[in-house]
Formats: sequence, structure tokens, C-alpha cells
Amino acid sequence: MDQFLKAAIEEAEQGWQEGGIPIGSVLVHDGEIIGRGHNRRIQKGSTILHGEMDALEHAGRLSASVYKNSTLYTTLSPCAMCSGTILLYGIPHVVIAENVNFTGEEELLKSRGVKLDIVQDDYCIKMMATFIKENPKLWNEDIGE
Amino acid sequence: MDQFLKAAIEEAEQGWQEGGIPIGSVLVHDGEIIGRGHNRRIQKGSTILHGEMDALEHAGRLSASVYKNSTLYTTLSPCAMCSGTILLYGIPHVVIAENVNFTGEEELLKSRGVKLDIVQDDYCIKMMATFIKENPKLWNEDIGE
Repeated sequence: MDQFLKAAIEEAEQGWQEGGIPIGSVLVHDGEIIGRGHNRRIQKGSTILHGEMDALEHAGRLSASVYKNSTLYTTLSPCAMCSGTILLYGIPHVVIAENVNFTGEEELLKSRGVKLDIVQDDYCIKMMATFIKENPKLWNEDIGE
Repeated sequence: MDQFLKAAIEEAEQGWQEGGIPIGSVLVHDGEIIGRGHNRRIQKGSTILHGEMDALEHAGRLSASVYKNSTLYTTLSPCAMCSGTILLYGIPHVVIAENVNFTGEEELLKSRGVKLDIVQDDYCIKMMATFIKENPKLWNEDIGE
């Protein structure tokens, strides 16, 4: 498996071990991970620290030119917030482990020229499905069914 | 002036006093402010704490039904990240102090049924214009011209 997708999955697993929602992400620039993170809704009571947002926050303040030559890896199809953030920073390429359990704003991203690679990774599909099955109330807390 | 827009402006002013980017926001539900915040790019080195995001983060974990009956007030037209977040949480109404200095994803929001009120508040237009004039490098740091 791609080493960067593997790193995103490790972040998701870490989040799960912490009792959180198992979604992880890494931002890659010039062949190196410059930011990594995972969903912190439970751990920090955060409504904005999705995996992708946490990775971008940990990457810190970057110039536009860095974002424009980066790839974001995420274990789950990015929601509207994370997709909007991808558009804000002009990240041109997103690698998505799976969109079976949730499909975010992929059409919007593609319509703005963002390249998406959907891996449909079996492990990620099972991990997320298991989490949702075990935590339906949590999964539906904020954005409903 | 609307008390909630005034509160958003107070947040922007507080951010400016802290040496930050003067953009503020409040989330209002049932006639009460349930979250308030301002841009923390400088103060916290944050790439995700725009004014709107900071207000939503401070509002804490809410159920979908609360978001769906809330109004977000912001001193500047919401960027792609903040607009995506408005869509994620299904916030149906956004009051925008001005879109002269920056126009965000208003068309996207409107196309998804979000009601926008653009106030074009003179004070906010001048505040933001002054900040940008005095800090062009900072203003263009992350998303470029």
C-alpha cells in the first residue's frame, strides 16, 4: 500500500484507540508528510477538527505555493467542510481511501478541477462500517441521518 | 445596528487588538449567541480558525436540529472553508457584514438554499480595507492574490 495512505490509516487507528472517530489524514508535499492528524470530535469536543482539518492545522501556516503542490490523503471521502478547505487552499489532488460509508463533496471538488483518487480500501471500509454500526448515535449527532 | 452583527464586529475588533486578522463571527440560536469567535491565524498560528470556524468551535458539539435553526453572523463574506462548514452543518441563514474586500462562496451557498443577507456595513468595509492595506503580505500569505 501507498506509504502515505498507510500513514493516514495509522492516524485513524490512533483516533479509534483514543475513543474517537476513526478518520485520519496526512498532507504530503515533495514526497514528505508535512502535516498529519485525525478526527478529534470526541477527544477535544471539537466540531471542526475532522481528520483533514487536523492534518492541515498541524501542517501550520504555509504559503499558497506549498498547498498548490501538495496532496491530501484521507481515509474517508471529505465532507463539505473539508472539501471547502481543500478548495480554499487550492490543494490539487486528494487520495480518498473509501467513499462507501460516506460520500462527501466529491462532485464539487471535481467541478473545481481537484483530482480525486478513490482507492476503495477494504480495511478502511470495514473499519468505518464497524465504527458506525457500534456508534450510530455519535455518527448521526451533528449532521443527522 | 443588529445586536448580533455588533457582537461579530466586537470579535473582529478584539482580534485586531490582539494583532490578528480582524474578522469576527457569532452563531445565534433562539435569539441568543451560542458561540462567538474571531480569526486566530496570527494568535495561534492556526490555518483553520477563521472567525466563523472559531465561533462554531466555541459553540461546541450541537445536534443537527440546533444548527438547522441557527443564524451565523460574520464580518466578511465566508471563504470556501467556512462556506463548506455552513453547508456541512446545514446552517440556513448567514448575515454578512460586507463582501467588498473579499467575496467568498456566496453563489455556492445560495445554490444550496442558504439565505444570505449582505449588510455592506461601512465600518466593516473600512476596517478590513485598512487591515489589508497595512498587511498585504499577511493577507496574501496562504491563498495568494
